[in-house]
Amino acid sequence: MTMQQTPLLMSRLMDRGAQMQPEVEVVTATADGTRRQTLAETRDRAHQLAHALAKAGIEIGDRVATFMWNGSRHLEAYHAIACMGAVLHTLNIRLSDVDLEYIINHAGDRIIIVDADMLPKLEELAGRMPTVERIIVATEPGLEGWSTSLPNAVDYEDFIAEQPTVYDWPDIDENSPLGLCYTSGTTGKPKGVMYTHRSNYLHTISICMTDVMGLSASDTVLGIVPMFHANAWGLPWAACMLGMQQVFPHRFMDPKRLTELLESEQITMSAGVPTIWQGVRSVLEAAPGKFDLSNLQRLTCGGSAPPPSLIGWFWDELGVEMIQGWGMTETSPLATISRRSGKRKHRDMSDAERAANQAKAGLLMPGLELEIFDDEWKALPHDGKAFGELLIRGPWICSEYYNDPQPEKFHDGWLVTGDVAKIDPEGYLIITDRSKDLIKSGGEWISSVDLENHIVALDGVAQACVVAQPHPKWDERPVAVVVKKAGAELSKDKVLAHCGEKFAKWQLPDDVLFVDAIPLTATGKMDKKVVRAKLADDGYQLPDLAGKRA
Amino acid sequence: MTMQQTPLLMSRLMDRGAQMQPEVEVVTATADGTRRQTLAETRDRAHQLAHALAKAGIEIGDRVATFMWNGSRHLEAYHAIACMGAVLHTLNIRLSDVDLEYIINHAGDRIIIVDADMLPKLEELAGRMPTVERIIVATEPGLEGWSTSLPNAVDYEDFIAEQPTVYDWPDIDENSPLGLCYTSGTTGKPKGVMYTHRSNYLHTISICMTDVMGLSASDTVLGIVPMFHANAWGLPWAACMLGMQQVFPHRFMDPKRLTELLESEQITMSAGVPTIWQGVRSVLEAAPGKFDLSNLQRLTCGGSAPPPSLIGWFWDELGVEMIQGWGMTETSPLATISRRSGKRKHRDMSDAERAANQAKAGLLMPGLELEIFDDEWKALPHDGKAFGELLIRGPWICSEYYNDPQPEKFHDGWLVTGDVAKIDPEGYLIITDRSKDLIKSGGEWISSVDLENHIVALDGVAQACVVAQPHPKWDERPVAVVVKKAGAELSKDKVLAHCGEKFAKWQLPDDVLFVDAIPLTATGKMDKKVVRAKLADDGYQLPDLAGKRA
Repeated sequence: MTMQQTPLLMSRLMDRGAQMQPEVEVVTATADGTRRQTLAETRDRAHQLAHALAKAGIEIGDRVATFMWNGSRHLEAYHAIACMGAVLHTLNIRLSDVDLEYIINHAGDRIIIVDADMLPKLEELAGRMPTVERIIVATEPGLEGWSTSLPNAVDYEDFIAEQPTVYDWPDIDENSPLGLCYTSGTTGKPKGVMYTHRSNYLHTISICMTDVMGLSASDTVLGIVPMFHANAWGLPWAACMLGMQQVFPHRFMDPKRLTELLESEQITMSAGVPTIWQGVRSVLEAAPGKFDLSNLQRLTCGGSAPPPSLIGWFWDELGVEMIQGWGMTETSPLATISRRSGKRKHRDMSDAERAANQAKAGLLMPGLELEIFDDEWKALPHDGKAFGELLIRGPWICSEYYNDPQPEKFHDGWLVTGDVAKIDPEGYLIITDRSKDLIKSGGEWISSVDLENHIVALDGVAQACVVAQPHPKWDERPVAVVVKKAGAELSKDKVLAHCGEKFAKWQLPDDVLFVDAIPLTATGKMDKKVVRAKLADDGYQLPDLAGKRA
Repeated sequence: MTMQQTPLLMSRLMDRGAQMQPEVEVVTATADGTRRQTLAETRDRAHQLAHALAKAGIEIGDRVATFMWNGSRHLEAYHAIACMGAVLHTLNIRLSDVDLEYIINHAGDRIIIVDADMLPKLEELAGRMPTVERIIVATEPGLEGWSTSLPNAVDYEDFIAEQPTVYDWPDIDENSPLGLCYTSGTTGKPKGVMYTHRSNYLHTISICMTDVMGLSASDTVLGIVPMFHANAWGLPWAACMLGMQQVFPHRFMDPKRLTELLESEQITMSAGVPTIWQGVRSVLEAAPGKFDLSNLQRLTCGGSAPPPSLIGWFWDELGVEMIQGWGMTETSPLATISRRSGKRKHRDMSDAERAANQAKAGLLMPGLELEIFDDEWKALPHDGKAFGELLIRGPWICSEYYNDPQPEKFHDGWLVTGDVAKIDPEGYLIITDRSKDLIKSGGEWISSVDLENHIVALDGVAQACVVAQPHPKWDERPVAVVVKKAGAELSKDKVLAHCGEKFAKWQLPDDVLFVDAIPLTATGKMDKKVVRAKLADDGYQLPDLAGKRA
């Protein structure tokens, strides 16, 4: 072999940032301020945690779970568990106890590291986690005096105390498992995606490219997207590799606190789902001139598509680039990215033209392949018109679920994403809908996402969710469920008139329902399954059907 | 396997740029202008070339050589040969016929693609290249009417004409050979470095990171560093992957023409050795205000260290960041990089402090390891003072020479670089010297590079080369060989007085010799071997020794 056969292990990247920039800080929000430690301390503590886990019997390949907010100890767990060759299993703290029980047992977690305030939720599972041998409890100021009914619980600090600060990371195969994330399971049981060192290494390097997230050692990142949500889009890995200053909100996820952190920590980039940025926008609009966000350069937005109006607002008001990314737990997760300038020809584009591109899911990252297929697995043209089932392949794309192959989710080496999409002649991916959320009316398809994006741009609308309702003649018809902004005057007719400016008559919602809140999934997306179930529970009828019966 | 096992093949990256930005151009300088083709055309022609090579019998693993300037057809050769699984062997057109004969035969090249104007040089080897079956002759405007005494020569355009524009790139092992570069061999025979798809893929992705070269799809690159010199530092691969606009000077390497291209093609980034940028600086200084280089953002400078004065000049005068990179053919080549801002703490640094960092070889790229060792292979401290033999390892570092193992160049899995270096507490690599150019005087080491950098900052000095001369008492003593700028008034005493401002008495050169030019190696570096040989041929004596005999 003429070139060195260095395995692509995360342990070869994760200590680097602390070596390059030992004095840079990892900042965790607390009830009345912040708790700060350096990257060097974080690295040393990660090595200590690895020693403690090894002493507790954790071996290469064993699953160690976290049940935690975003914070410095969660970061240490990432660093330690992955580098020592164990498997970082990030449990979603917002799941039901039924799902958690299934996931913990399916993964066979041996240890769970839990934030002290999350203990009550974990205690609901007492006696239902037979593989779990120990609970490590991480505290924060104000949460120190924890106690629990769970057996074998130990304080995180006691667990790592006195351990050596240098762990000799093992040289394992690069295809070894590294991290486990379960999809939140909109249908059926949650399914586990097992990342490998190789897949994660390549994803980490790739998101640092200038045209992807453009991450730099000079950045200060506010990590809002939960670390239990597809590894926070890979940011913790990249941040440790580069030595970025990292700020974590922990359990303080209200928009006001996030906005304060953006200002006080001089954040340059952040990442979160659209609802987070809607909230931050509301805080900023409610107090014009109060916050100085002049350090902020870019927000990465994923999980679901940000409305174009939101992208435009952040640019126009703050000069902040909202970067849309598309991906899923199964894609590590980043697969496409949409920047203000993604191509040479964009240099001369107007803001409006750029915003139109940014509203698309984005351009494919190097090394991946995307294709859209019809029902007979025939590839469809990239003309921006044809839409079909989106498939993807490449070195950081899932090839099977963990101990649960699910062959129907894969086709001929490709992952079947469950999204319905178009690809335009410029190569932009445009997500039409989740295949299960697309509305089939009279043999034609209506995109719930397109309607939502349009409705939410209307003055007075805070959120909009469009779901299908069964219809005897048309098969399905769209209904819009809308949350008004405080004090806004809105009516069904006003919303429909607004939709009529863009959509054909047959594409307009049959009804507009005003609600106080839209239920969210455990990963912060609008939970259309619950919206539909609630309409069914309420005995909701489409107007023309209700009319017939009246 | 839970994640897809997509092999890291260059064919998975190289077609991407043309797909993303088909209309972007590849521009080649001609005698009286430019020749332009789109990326889509370049890709189609590369696929055609692959078909033609396959038809000519080239199989996976076969060596196909290029003997070419930087230009669109050389780029097509990169694209075609690598992606079809053959080996791109880039011959250095500046080598002697003796070295070329050795290299071509050692590589076993089956085909050579040659620029028409280089035919006379290749004809010197007639009858001495038994493995070479065919010569493909690439022409440019003005060079069409070629003829040659070499057998089986065919015009490049005739060779690829009528071939299909889609080649089905083979799925080969990612550790398959991809490209062969011979080091110019300062001692002994030239040695071949065989890159693999895997090593090159990782290098390509990594140089696009924001903190490395920060390459973007919006960039326009002027590729000056020869494509036969360590794959032009990886730029052609990255540029094709991203779809960058690429401008090639072909055989028009004079500084004036290069400066004109920088302006007329609105270049945003370029790459070349320090002598190139010295030349461009002279052109700009000779005609203040004549050239508008407002698009130019950064120059990557490698091959040898740029003098700090040059780095400062480009920033102060043009706002252009000179990025120093360090590496060698054996390291693919980029290993360290020095940016104006490489760390968070640099944000608040003065220009002078930044320039001091930029004058260092740089910070290590993610995924690699550097270490300095003493004579007994003991690792030395990273204190910026201790210096020793520099060793490097990682996934794009050579592990053996092609069919020529050279075990003394490798140690325990590391490449022995032949450079003597320090690593400072900030992690910056500082090259003290090539180990063979370091001057050993009275048991102490004197760095020829440090002296050269200081001398060249003196007004009136165009170039400076410091070499060791044998001395009976001190073992070796330094002598400076200096080229004056046109019209400059300089004397030995003036140079020595200038050196005395920084260096101790025992470190000062014993002599300063003024010459018209310093001989360069085939890769554009000062050829100290030739400088020393010339002094020996001339019967040069150090002043104190000559004095004794006088």
